[in-house]
Amino acid sequence: MSDLPARIDIQEEGPREGFQIADPPIATDRKIALIDALTGTGLKEIQVASFVDPRRVPGWADAEAVVAGITPRPGVRHTALWLNERGLERAIATGRLHLKALASTSASEPFLKRNQNQDFAANAAMLARNLARYRELGLTQVRLGVMASFGCNFAGEITPAQVVEAVARVQRLIDEVGLETAYICLADTMAWGNPESIRRVVGAVRERWPSHRIALHLHDTRGLAVANAYAGLQMGVDSFDASVAGLGGCPFAGHKGAAGNICTEDLVFLCHELGIETGVDLEALLEAARLAEEIFDKPLPGSVMHGGSLAAIRKRLAA
Amino acid sequence: MSDLPARIDIQEEGPREGFQIADPPIATDRKIALIDALTGTGLKEIQVASFVDPRRVPGWADAEAVVAGITPRPGVRHTALWLNERGLERAIATGRLHLKALASTSASEPFLKRNQNQDFAANAAMLARNLARYRELGLTQVRLGVMASFGCNFAGEITPAQVVEAVARVQRLIDEVGLETAYICLADTMAWGNPESIRRVVGAVRERWPSHRIALHLHDTRGLAVANAYAGLQMGVDSFDASVAGLGGCPFAGHKGAAGNICTEDLVFLCHELGIETGVDLEALLEAARLAEEIFDKPLPGSVMHGGSLAAIRKRLAA
Repeated sequence: MSDLPARIDIQEEGPREGFQIADPPIATDRKIALIDALTGTGLKEIQVASFVDPRRVPGWADAEAVVAGITPRPGVRHTALWLNERGLERAIATGRLHLKALASTSASEPFLKRNQNQDFAANAAMLARNLARYRELGLTQVRLGVMASFGCNFAGEITPAQVVEAVARVQRLIDEVGLETAYICLADTMAWGNPESIRRVVGAVRERWPSHRIALHLHDTRGLAVANAYAGLQMGVDSFDASVAGLGGCPFAGHKGAAGNICTEDLVFLCHELGIETGVDLEALLEAARLAEEIFDKPLPGSVMHGGSLAAIRKRLAA
Repeated sequence: MSDLPARIDIQEEGPREGFQIADPPIATDRKIALIDALTGTGLKEIQVASFVDPRRVPGWADAEAVVAGITPRPGVRHTALWLNERGLERAIATGRLHLKALASTSASEPFLKRNQNQDFAANAAMLARNLARYRELGLTQVRLGVMASFGCNFAGEITPAQVVEAVARVQRLIDEVGLETAYICLADTMAWGNPESIRRVVGAVRERWPSHRIALHLHDTRGLAVANAYAGLQMGVDSFDASVAGLGGCPFAGHKGAAGNICTEDLVFLCHELGIETGVDLEALLEAARLAEEIFDKPLPGSVMHGGSLAAIRKRLAA
């Protein structure tokens, strides 16, 4: 009935998503404290900064200082986000980041136009330039991302065929430049997905590229992120973006309805209860989530951080 | 791969669960306003009061006044909760309620002892008395409930065999008194369930009683309620308890971690997106959820009430 994976990988995006929207900005040393706490939880990949225009995103004006201040740990990749060449060069200049080649498109052209002022052709031209630069840098593995894979506020429903088309457009560019796809990340950017559409789209992409790994990036705006992750797990998906304490979403709301990405510790709790390994120490991650709540000084959307895991109860019962 | 039902029934429990823990108590006219709003949403069954000791539950000291003040509507059953004979007689005396025969046990004996100071034998004796009284009252259909069906803070893991045993104990009493089981409600009272354990337990109960309808009562303490509901839907479960805006849970916390039952409008949103009918007008229900937030004067756990459904976006796109 299901094909649950034995283990999953998690790309932690909480610091990058959370700090970019905090108003007023979080102090640099508090950002470093949260990233260092996350670095000790067993998470293998953490997006620790965003190299974007500080006039547009004042919350990341201190990206260089944050990256300079965090403590590396063997086996943990600290990554960053950039949206253009200038941002990439800033990330390179830190000398302290794991550079991850990103090639992201959208299944919805109206969303691309709205979000990046690009049509599919302009987007492809930009991706070709970026991929050439990645090759110069010696990066070989590309994260192929598709935004709006499950629906779009500007285009409505998105079909599995449109997602397959979007992947094919980027895969062609990756092939042309001689790089490889590390994995395909299907993003529910505007929280239109439901468990059955997750299954349909993942199924269609896997059918076309059976040997490519698939990841999911699930927003929790309408409360379905955990159910959607479970549907992905049932399809064998073994890689997820997630955000500690549910950080992210709307800058001006602390409630769950404004949540960003799926909450990391809730996803880890789900997986462990299902017998799926994550490599993460859930109790340490819950401590990090509570530190995030202290730093942001407002209730954050995570559930297990408030309700508690079952570990303490099981320990008491076993004693 | 799945066996989603064409439609589900929802038993709304928000007013009863929410009002019982509000401190200070909500004013009677505000309680009536929320129940009347819910009565107009298409929900067919709403638990509107709790007839319990007002010294222990001051939030329901006005149960009679609430029931006297609400407006009935054809096709909508207003039900109530009671824990003993005295409460049942108070509910009968209102003359305005749909009397629902309830026979609830627990799959965990330690939980029964802790919660009701009963072992299985004492619980069975009480249920036998209650069932005899229901027969006197002319009630024929019994809701057979099993608390702690997916795990217990005082007994740990609960096996499907223990749940089947619990159902069998009550079914025997129902048979003896000559009544019928309307449906079996499996309750995740302490939020130990996960999607796979939901599937296992529902499967075991259905295998033993293939013609009995199964309902789920899912607490959201650890963020898995919607995923657990989806797992139930995949098993063909077509009846759910739910709580508007996620009302319920810990009296002193407004955040999601303290949530009670699965949030009604999030469940309705999930079902509609999956093509499952609920009979509920989601936008009217979202209005009721927002009214609940106004009445309780704090952020409530629901997601769709904050993130918005997709209806307005789809309407704009279709225009």
